[in-house]
Amino acid sequence: MHRTKVKIVEEALDANNTIARANRSDFDRSGVSVVNLMSAPGAGKTTLLEATLGGLDLRVGVLEGDVQGSADADRIAAMHIPVVQLNTDGGFGGECHLDANMVRSALPAFSLDDLDLLIIENVGNLVCPAEFKVGEDTRAMICSVTEGEEKPLKYPLMFRACELVVVNKIDLLEHLDYDLDKLLYNIDAVHPDVPKLLVSAKTGEGVDQFRDWLTQVAAGAPAPA
Amino acid sequence: MHRTKVKIVEEALDANNTIARANRSDFDRSGVSVVNLMSAPGAGKTTLLEATLGGLDLRVGVLEGDVQGSADADRIAAMHIPVVQLNTDGGFGGECHLDANMVRSALPAFSLDDLDLLIIENVGNLVCPAEFKVGEDTRAMICSVTEGEEKPLKYPLMFRACELVVVNKIDLLEHLDYDLDKLLYNIDAVHPDVPKLLVSAKTGEGVDQFRDWLTQVAAGAPAPA
Repeated sequence: MHRTKVKIVEEALDANNTIARANRSDFDRSGVSVVNLMSAPGAGKTTLLEATLGGLDLRVGVLEGDVQGSADADRIAAMHIPVVQLNTDGGFGGECHLDANMVRSALPAFSLDDLDLLIIENVGNLVCPAEFKVGEDTRAMICSVTEGEEKPLKYPLMFRACELVVVNKIDLLEHLDYDLDKLLYNIDAVHPDVPKLLVSAKTGEGVDQFRDWLTQVAAGAPAPA
Repeated sequence: MHRTKVKIVEEALDANNTIARANRSDFDRSGVSVVNLMSAPGAGKTTLLEATLGGLDLRVGVLEGDVQGSADADRIAAMHIPVVQLNTDGGFGGECHLDANMVRSALPAFSLDDLDLLIIENVGNLVCPAEFKVGEDTRAMICSVTEGEEKPLKYPLMFRACELVVVNKIDLLEHLDYDLDKLLYNIDAVHPDVPKLLVSAKTGEGVDQFRDWLTQVAAGAPAPA
């Protein structure tokens, strides 16, 4: 007697992953690589993009996620880079993160075929953004040296869910009681050997390496998220 | 003919507020005043408490909320202050905030009758903690000058939901391109005339005023949250 093999449909009810895959298909069809950029509030995501995007030899678009306001999008627009502001406040209940559906709602505002790289600047938050895939190729998180060395231990999922950790504001190290080695040790404790960049978006130190990393992402280099 | 007046039970299904009121009753019965202390990750909540609590002439307890780890609780315990670490990771699904039920689960670990003041250090996050009352008397939020002047406009609920804004790390102002007046203007734009303190937990500047504020809270002074 034959048994009928039961097909297991995994994650069938996970609407976020379903929509993330739809986003992924659209990105693939247009040949655009996508970075999900995450950090705590004020770690310097937008400032790093300002320092980086000008010198980037790629067609870049930016999706700005914030609870309210368009301050970050205005800064990117001033660089004549296609940018869309997505506010989680209106219609999305003031969510503390972007999810795949929010990102999908913003995609028609871009000409994806005209982009090589889409950078999604997530809502400033070290917890929930790491839980929601949005169809990205890869994830980077920015950690500011003003935030304290123990952050990887307190927010391990965020540090684990990314393919690059940018340690920002290193120009301030000389004014802080900060143990950089301890931070790097704590990062490796939760995500062994994750690539790390030491950067000051203000002085420009390390910005070239971040630009190189983005170029590699656009060329399809880093491992998928 | 008489109409039967329909009783409207408002918020009856809002479990969080129901539990927050139960917490509130317990706090009242024990005569303990409660501060819900909120900020972005790394704004210096614990460092401010370290700088403040030693010189406070009150019986203080601290409830530390973090996704994972006990780094902050260890620092408070080193001051011989009753402290309980509440991790949202185990059993609470890695939540990005404390809610009334989580706080309630931690209350038996305190001797509330032996406290004048309970400080609840929330999970570092500028969004969701502001949405969940936990039975507190009042709320304070800490905003670090390393985070940028536009934060009140991007996270207005957090700045509106508190009775005090502590502007921390002012010792770093001389090393930053930071417009303090712009921050204060933006705070007033979302929460007109909210009390503000300029503080450096590192140098001690403004710490006395925060200590005075806590003493007033314990005496029942500030308006309820």
